[in-house]
Amino acid sequence: MITGKNYIGNQLSAKGSTTYKTFNPQLNIENETVFIEATSEEIKEAVQLASEAFIAFRNVSGVKKAAFLNAIADEILVLGEALIKTYCKESGLPEGRAIGERGRTVGQLQSFAKLLLEGSWVEATIDTAQPNREPQPKPDLRKLLVPLGPVVVFGASNFPLAFSTAGGDTAAALAAGCPVIVKSHPMHSGTGELVASAILQAAKKTGMPNGVFSNLNSSGIEVGSQLVKHPGVKAVGFTGSIKGGRALYDLAAKREEPIPVFAEMGSINPVVILPEALKNRGKALAKTYAGSITVGTGQFCTNPGLLLAIKSEALSSFIQELSNEIVKVEPSCMLHPNIVEAYENKKEKAVAQSGITVTAAYTTKVNANYARQTITTVEGQTFLENQSLHQEVFGPYSIVVQCANAKQLERIISKLEGQLTATVIADNQEASTYPEVIAALQNRVGRLIFNGVPTGVEVCAAMTHGGPYPASTDSRFTAIGIHSIKRWVRPFSYQDWPNALLPEALKNENPLSINRVIDGQQTRDQIK
Amino acid sequence: MITGKNYIGNQLSAKGSTTYKTFNPQLNIENETVFIEATSEEIKEAVQLASEAFIAFRNVSGVKKAAFLNAIADEILVLGEALIKTYCKESGLPEGRAIGERGRTVGQLQSFAKLLLEGSWVEATIDTAQPNREPQPKPDLRKLLVPLGPVVVFGASNFPLAFSTAGGDTAAALAAGCPVIVKSHPMHSGTGELVASAILQAAKKTGMPNGVFSNLNSSGIEVGSQLVKHPGVKAVGFTGSIKGGRALYDLAAKREEPIPVFAEMGSINPVVILPEALKNRGKALAKTYAGSITVGTGQFCTNPGLLLAIKSEALSSFIQELSNEIVKVEPSCMLHPNIVEAYENKKEKAVAQSGITVTAAYTTKVNANYARQTITTVEGQTFLENQSLHQEVFGPYSIVVQCANAKQLERIISKLEGQLTATVIADNQEASTYPEVIAALQNRVGRLIFNGVPTGVEVCAAMTHGGPYPASTDSRFTAIGIHSIKRWVRPFSYQDWPNALLPEALKNENPLSINRVIDGQQTRDQIK
Repeated sequence: MITGKNYIGNQLSAKGSTTYKTFNPQLNIENETVFIEATSEEIKEAVQLASEAFIAFRNVSGVKKAAFLNAIADEILVLGEALIKTYCKESGLPEGRAIGERGRTVGQLQSFAKLLLEGSWVEATIDTAQPNREPQPKPDLRKLLVPLGPVVVFGASNFPLAFSTAGGDTAAALAAGCPVIVKSHPMHSGTGELVASAILQAAKKTGMPNGVFSNLNSSGIEVGSQLVKHPGVKAVGFTGSIKGGRALYDLAAKREEPIPVFAEMGSINPVVILPEALKNRGKALAKTYAGSITVGTGQFCTNPGLLLAIKSEALSSFIQELSNEIVKVEPSCMLHPNIVEAYENKKEKAVAQSGITVTAAYTTKVNANYARQTITTVEGQTFLENQSLHQEVFGPYSIVVQCANAKQLERIISKLEGQLTATVIADNQEASTYPEVIAALQNRVGRLIFNGVPTGVEVCAAMTHGGPYPASTDSRFTAIGIHSIKRWVRPFSYQDWPNALLPEALKNENPLSINRVIDGQQTRDQIK
Repeated sequence: MITGKNYIGNQLSAKGSTTYKTFNPQLNIENETVFIEATSEEIKEAVQLASEAFIAFRNVSGVKKAAFLNAIADEILVLGEALIKTYCKESGLPEGRAIGERGRTVGQLQSFAKLLLEGSWVEATIDTAQPNREPQPKPDLRKLLVPLGPVVVFGASNFPLAFSTAGGDTAAALAAGCPVIVKSHPMHSGTGELVASAILQAAKKTGMPNGVFSNLNSSGIEVGSQLVKHPGVKAVGFTGSIKGGRALYDLAAKREEPIPVFAEMGSINPVVILPEALKNRGKALAKTYAGSITVGTGQFCTNPGLLLAIKSEALSSFIQELSNEIVKVEPSCMLHPNIVEAYENKKEKAVAQSGITVTAAYTTKVNANYARQTITTVEGQTFLENQSLHQEVFGPYSIVVQCANAKQLERIISKLEGQLTATVIADNQEASTYPEVIAALQNRVGRLIFNGVPTGVEVCAAMTHGGPYPASTDSRFTAIGIHSIKRWVRPFSYQDWPNALLPEALKNENPLSINRVIDGQQTRDQIK
């Protein structure tokens, strides 16, 4: 049941008087539940409880944390139809997407559980003592990764499950041993509360300390700001707009003790289509990209918002073809009236820029909150000179830049802001003849895709979801895949520490049978 | 020869008119060389050159980068007596220390060369394709660590070699593939210029691009500020005061594109002496700690500035013994008159606090710039209530806190700021009877030492030199040891990228024979 209340640890709490409701964009009506925003007192309680829980939780074994994560996955599935229905009612997204995203969320939790059960992720590194070394004896040093402390996770509007309450940030932080306080996204607080109840049920069943998880409601920025500023909070995870992410980063940087903020923010994900590919399969590419631009109503952070190619007849045909194809796609519902409004405003600003030609615009009347996909085109020189054209238009919108030549293409890429992805479309040996273009792309992005589409982010160890600012606030980490756990941990060394008092991962006997680096060698051996 | 000029890449440059000299604290006179501060124009030139060099340097093979680092080590040794003499003249430190620190510096460079030759440090992670996976095919994803871009390194006053021009930060950044611009420390700019010339000689001999290294002089904060604010700079390394490190962090955080700043700053390195140990070997401990507090005139970031114990007769005897021992140590020279002045001022402020008793103070007249070691003591409650007593007094000063009981000891620890290290002195099973004390320490530090001293930081893979703020600005990284390379790199993924165009580390054939994780398994195998 959705109560509209906050969870301070495992207690429902509603001390405040500010309320809000979520919205059903498909029906264009408010949903019924009244959500009560967390008060300053409740925020303090949640952080206090998380700090207390951390003392026990940081020492919970990997096996037990894995049981906790797997139990969360199970409890999410137990929510059944209620979760899927609430998700759809609060996002306007179709049931298939809800089920798919639930699968992704459950899969993420299970992949971290697997990581914990294997155990080697702590990067145990041991340099044994050399008591007879001259001029000075070498001490015994043993290092492993330890959790930072309570983490605040902000729910994302565009992924009510996979990047929200029990999404990637939460799963990674809990796996690391950090208690999590979620600032629920106001567009899907019902979905959030259901998932929160699943997490707390799992915590109870697996004996986790109270305070390991809390869920706070708010429709404005105040609750989030207070959380980020609280001295008990040690790190922040965020997925959303550049404006939102940067505001949190700035708050965290101004603290007496600055804390890491990992914000995965905007990206226009440039796609470079090289001439041969354009000539040989422009038609097929147009169809593929009409799909990639409109999938999920363009509400993915990896949406291809910028197509780059060198001027040619083939490019003109491609633009025509893409424009024809995209208007064939049935328009779909956006997440919230605010999102549609932002889309329309940003698009309006973009198409009003000098030199922009609209080549495809859906003119038929659409339902309320439905987005009309749009393609524009511009000359390379104009794009180079007008930085505002680089800005993300969150939704099914893409601009095709017609570059004068390869040199200009390279210059445009090197002037781009940091991006999550870039894609190169090339035929045969074509890519190897544009080394400067590829080198320029490498320097601006976190992931480089060959002959594919940027949408659809595989959850796996080799994934990088992040990139130079403003794709993320710290390009040294990924937000997706098991290595995203590294955002929430720090190295910690023991020097000459008694074997009996060392954590299991560092004991001579290697009781966890994990992979360790001992005196420079990878091994699962014991230390004799 | 020391010219007093800046190195913009391999060109000597002196466009400015602001000058300064270094100081010989032993002789209490200025050294002869006139150093010319870098101008805004020279700063821009250095960053521009570094950005250009990065394009080539980021793709230089590990083998070639290793040759470069080894050549730097060789060229430093070739500087011979001139380097050692300049070092001593600019620091007041004895020749033995100079030679030892040169050995450490050379060793660090060689350890990164070894890391590069082995090659597995890039953490190559490969998830192979599953074209038949349902509902969607799984793409091929391959990840490795890539360099961030030009890095600015600030020389440290207390390590003219090992944490300055070719010190740990520079060695790690060059190993990562990042060009380095050093802001030379004004107290040892001659030492810095000599080492810079060695780096540039090595770069020339091993064919590195011009701009891979620059060395800029300045006695104030302006050159450093301009460097950190320059959009071409992508990361910053610093070792020094909290004030200095925080100022750089703030500048970097306020940039349009915020960049990572790894600042290793102050620490008072608490030492907890448990009752049994104190009773059984207080006398020996007093002698050991009199040495650790005064080694290097107390100018180490791991200097034990805070001793914590539970009130007892044994503690009173220990304080007496430590006070007796420490005045037996011959006073020694500090790095610079400014450092002595800061030491005397901070000490004066500390001892003037209410409740502080000075138990050892060297009263005999000392040479100019020599530091008089001092021990004070205070009640636990007073220490708890007066945060100003937690502040580092950089030099041979330590405060002994007499705690009422174990509970108060734990409370004091949990209220401490972040620290590089903590040390526990315990006999037999004693440590296991204070789990809360140990747990509290773990939460505040980067390294925990058993029955030793915090001074003397081993350079090895298992070392953590860093810790919660303000020990460092980002506890997720270490400043010492081969893993410090991780500060200057980011993960980067290729999706479905043609084998021929992949970097060597990710190619099917594994031409570098490095350790990789392929589909979850550690292996040096090829992909068939």
